[in-house]
Amino acid sequence: MAKTKARELERFGSNVRKLREAKEWTQEELAEKAGLDQTYISGIERGERNLTILSIAKLARALAVAASELCKGIDR
Amino acid sequence: MAKTKARELERFGSNVRKLREAKEWTQEELAEKAGLDQTYISGIERGERNLTILSIAKLARALAVAASELCKGIDR
Repeated sequence: MAKTKARELERFGSNVRKLREAKEWTQEELAEKAGLDQTYISGIERGERNLTILSIAKLARALAVAASELCKGIDR
Repeated sequence: MAKTKARELERFGSNVRKLREAKEWTQEELAEKAGLDQTYISGIERGERNLTILSIAKLARALAVAASELCKGIDR
């Protein structure tokens, strides 16, 4: 299945990366805290994953940020 | 398949309903503007739909609000 590369997913991915890097966490560390797989985190940050609300909430809790922070700008 | 009723989905649904009602739109009107089915909008507002980022962005554009507005509080 060809990887979907939508602007919304790329913006979401860059939001996740910025917040993760601000905490100086590796992708492995974020994956562990969020109960997700590291390769999934890497796909998210490359804008290749179309997460659901429940996964967004899981990531937000792991990063200790509001989910709305992760969704900033995805509609533009 | 039993309908999943998660707090995050219920909060997202109530965010959508509040924003729709503030515009005095019916579910049909929102469905048409978002290019989604009315029964899907009704399921979203009942907290029974686990939308993806791309659907969230679509709804945000239809409601002319930021996607972060729709995701407010889903992580609490």
